Order: sequence, then C-alpha cells, then structure tokens
Amino acid sequence: MAKKIVIIAPNRDVDAWVEALKQQDEKLQVEVYPQDTQREKTEFILTWNPPREVFQNYPNLKVVASMGAGVKHIFNNSTIAENVVVTKVEDKQLEKDLGIFVLTSCLNHLRDISFYYTKQQESEWKPIKYVRPEETCVGILGFGTIGQAVGETLYKSDFKVIGYANSNKNHKNIKTFVGKDAFTEFLQQCDILVCLLPLTKETQGILSASLFKQLKKGAYLINVGRGAHLKENDLLEAINNQQLSGAALDVFQEEPLPQEHIFWSHPKITITPHIASVTHPKRVSKQIVENYDRMQSEEKILYQIDKQKGY
Amino acid sequence: MAKKIVIIAPNRDVDAWVEALKQQDEKLQVEVYPQDTQREKTEFILTWNPPREVFQNYPNLKVVASMGAGVKHIFNNSTIAENVVVTKVEDKQLEKDLGIFVLTSCLNHLRDISFYYTKQQESEWKPIKYVRPEETCVGILGFGTIGQAVGETLYKSDFKVIGYANSNKNHKNIKTFVGKDAFTEFLQQCDILVCLLPLTKETQGILSASLFKQLKKGAYLINVGRGAHLKENDLLEAINNQQLSGAALDVFQEEPLPQEHIFWSHPKITITPHIASVTHPKRVSKQIVENYDRMQSEEKILYQIDKQKGY
Repeated sequence: MAKKIVIIAPNRDVDAWVEALKQQDEKLQVEVYPQDTQREKTEFILTWNPPREVFQNYPNLKVVASMGAGVKHIFNNSTIAENVVVTKVEDKQLEKDLGIFVLTSCLNHLRDISFYYTKQQESEWKPIKYVRPEETCVGILGFGTIGQAVGETLYKSDFKVIGYANSNKNHKNIKTFVGKDAFTEFLQQCDILVCLLPLTKETQGILSASLFKQLKKGAYLINVGRGAHLKENDLLEAINNQQLSGAALDVFQEEPLPQEHIFWSHPKITITPHIASVTHPKRVSKQIVENYDRMQSEEKILYQIDKQKGY
Repeated sequence: MAKKIVIIAPNRDVDAWVEALKQQDEKLQVEVYPQDTQREKTEFILTWNPPREVFQNYPNLKVVASMGAGVKHIFNNSTIAENVVVTKVEDKQLEKDLGIFVLTSCLNHLRDISFYYTKQQESEWKPIKYVRPEETCVGILGFGTIGQAVGETLYKSDFKVIGYANSNKNHKNIKTFVGKDAFTEFLQQCDILVCLLPLTKETQGILSASLFKQLKKGAYLINVGRGAHLKENDLLEAINNQQLSGAALDVFQEEPLPQEHIFWSHPKITITPHIASVTHPKRVSKQIVENYDRMQSEEKILYQIDKQKGY
C-alpha cells in the first residue's frame, strides 16, 4: 500500500506542511481534505480543528496526529475509536520560544514596561520603583515537559520558580506541588501565575474567581495555555478589586479576539495575538513521518495522548 | 579630628544617604552642602552634580566620591587637585539590575512588544514573525565590569554576545574586540548594540551617523550609558533611512526629557525615564565608609578613577 498522510485542517494554509512532509520522505503521498481520495485506505491523519465526526469517513484509521502540542480540538469534535492512537507534536524549539515569551512577559511586568509605554504617549517622565526577579515567585500551572522547559528559562534569569502538576517531577531546581491537596499552598506563593495547562474537562475555566482569590494580593496572570482556561469576567472583576494587578494574555476563547472585546482597551491587560510560540512544519515533520513509519512497522508510537486524561 | 563626610548633591533628596551612612558608623558626622561647617576640616566629599569649582572651598580635601558609577559630573564642573582621589561606586546589584533591564529591552525588540502595544490600541489582531535570541548578536559597547555582567545575563538567555573594550578581558563565553582597529569588525556583527560606555571626551557623541552605518542594516540601539553618548539627530536620520530599526533609550542629554522633545512621539523609539538601574544608598554606604576609613589609615582607596582616562 502506498504511504499516505491526509491533512485535515480547514481554514488553515497547509502548503508548508505538505512541502515539509514530502521533503522528509519523497515516497510519501500527502493529500489534503476534502480533496483526498480512497478514504478506506487512509491510516494516518494529521489535523488541526477537524470538522465534526470527520474521522467516521476513514474506516481503517490508525493514527490521528495533532499539528501542535494541544489535542483538545480533536476530542472536541469527534469520537475516536479505541484502537486509534492520538498523538501530539513535541518540539524543543517551541518550548524554548514559549520560555522566552513567558520570560519577556514576566520581565515586562517587573519593569512596568506597559506603564512606561502609556507614559510615553503622554510625554510624561515618571520613574517608579522596580521589582527584581530574585524577589519574585513565578508559579507554573501545568508543570509537564513544556512547563519544565519554561520554568528552567525563568530560573536561569534568577526568578524563584515553583511548579504544579498531577505527578511529581523531581526537578532539580524547581519545587513541584503535586495534586489537589497541594493546590492552595502552591497558589499562595505566586507573585506571577503562568498557565501552561493542557485543555481538558478538568482544566476548562480553571482561571476563575476562586483560584484568583488564593493568589497573593496583587498577583499577575500570564495565560499562554488556552483561551478556554480563563473565565473572562472573573479576570475583569479580580483586576477591578485589585486582587490581581493585571494580566498578559496570548490566547483567547475566540481568536482573533473580536474587535469590540473589552480586553483590547483595558489598561491592566496586555494582549498579544497568539504569538508565544509557533510550530514550524519544517521542524516537526520529521517526527510525524517517523510516527508513520512506526505505525507501519507496529512499533510504539511517539508522543501518544492518554485518552482518559486528554493530554 | 571628627569623622565627617560632606554630601554635595544639589537638587537631590539626600535624606536616605545621610541615614544610610550614619547607620554604617554611628560616630560619623554627615553634613549636607551648603549647610556644612568648618570646610577647612573636610577631607571626604560624597557628590552628584557638584556646583562649579565647589571643591576650591575645601583646602584639605582628600577624596571625592561619586554617588554612582559615573564620574563625568565631577570632572565637568571642577578642577580636581592632583593629590585628591576620585572614586566611583561599584554595586553588584546595580549590575544585575542593569542586566535585567537590557535583557528586557532585547527581548521586547525580538518579540515586537511595542508593535503589539500599538496594535492593541487599535484593537487589531496582527501576528508577525518573531526572531530568537540564538539568532541575534548583541554587541556590548563598553565591556568593563558592568558590561561583562550585562553580557553574561544575555548569554544565559541564549543571545550571541560580543564585547568591545580598550583592553582584552579574556571572558570565557564572550569574545572581546579590543581597541580602535577592531571597532568596525565589532560593529558589523551587531544586530543589537548596547551602549554601556563611561562618558569621557572620547566617547561623547560616539553614537553617531558614522557608527550607525557600520552596523548591520536594520540594527537596534539600546542606550543605557549616558545621554551625551548619542547624537540625537543622527539617530532620527538613521531610523528614517532604515539603517536602524529603532532604539530603546533610558538616558538623555537633558533629564527629565523635555515634554516637547520629538523622541516622545517617535513610533520606533521606546523611552524609559532613567530606570535601568538605581543605586540604593543602603547597599553602597558600606563601601563609602570603608573608603573613609582607608583614607584615614592611608590604605589603598577602592574603586579609584584613573583621572587621565576619566573612568
């Protein structure tokens, strides 16, 4: 049977993906849904935001691979048969980029950069006192592979870093708080909270009033997880009553963030358009083709998702 | 003779300095010019921006100590007798703070943070491609004690770093370009140029058209040295003709930067009000009192300035 990967990613320009995959293996056929052929022969799908229940059209499907680190978009819209493996992308460069973005956001908070941008527009010279990384505790909510890489980047710039996860990570520089019993203790220490959780039923809406009130008064929120982690009205209220000093948001429930959304004009909220880290097809096509080969030779597939946990 | 330090710092609130010095040594008298008494007995002056030739009133002066890392303000306004020692402050925390500020400025440049602030005001979602630290060469112009500390901070966050100095530093991670013959070669490699020079006759106005045109096209300037290093009109021209992509300025020829100054409203110039690092009297009063004691016991004074070099 011919080697074939089908890409299902409506509303996304997939040319770079097609090219990168073919460069990995010249014998590989890459077809793009809905123009793909002979669906009964398709075993491997690469996808982002697939249409509802689209996988039902592929009776011999073996692997559904996400084009990014997140997989919620796959489970949202489809029932995945028990024998189908779901995978994500693991990309060291993506972790590094994300670390640099979170570092930038933390430093901008400490050095009041958005305050000075505003003052510049008013031609006002107004020095204020700064805070130092070594005086600042950053809590990484979601201390998996990516969270640990981000934490290490912050640690190298002298931040105090702690992590929260469902299982112990035994990280040499960063203390991990494990499981629900340790959650409050974790939150109480955070001057800055960074959300890097996967999106699951349990984590949806976790950034809420009840979480915010457990943080230090005046704590700062950085969301680089998913938009659906955040209860938007709860954030606005927490900033208004000064429980939070502000937030840097890179992800939103609806993207692009609608023009009329109140976040755009909020003086304590910094908006970036989902640019914390971007997956480059060139870098990850190798691992996708490797997984294709592993599927064919019935070896263990890399970066598998635990369908119970959802990440 | 009573132990006495006289502070000469017009237009500056010196209460914290008086208190910090007295806490170091309860026998120490601290007097503030022009209310100080018995000037013929004064041997040690601590100063910032002294009035013209004020030291002539102190016939038995032995040490003039700067309240910061810079000393140009001392030589600007006064003739210093040959037997008088001039000192600066050396403060590890100040170097660290400066490193963090320069890191923040470099990261904001790579991640287009000022662009996104502008877009936020326009409620416009416009992701653009980012550049990585490991793809970016930062040149430290003035690779002395402070320059090396700043360079190390950038190096830890994966920037490529090079330094320029008058003498070789043999730094383990950072290549130093030494002396005028190596200046062009140094400049040609810089994606970002950070000015950390002391202000002397030779370095005044060094950030000029002739320097800018030796940098890579589209290079970025960060000035955390002194305002007088920069030829302001040359900067505006270099940005206008796209030789430079922009600048982050923390120091200015006149501070506070006058309200009508064109820099305030320039879209490619980021202004901060001299906040890169701030000397805290509490941290440096110990070394000042130690130098007083060394003066009395005729030991070698710390952090002496070479009056020929001016730093």
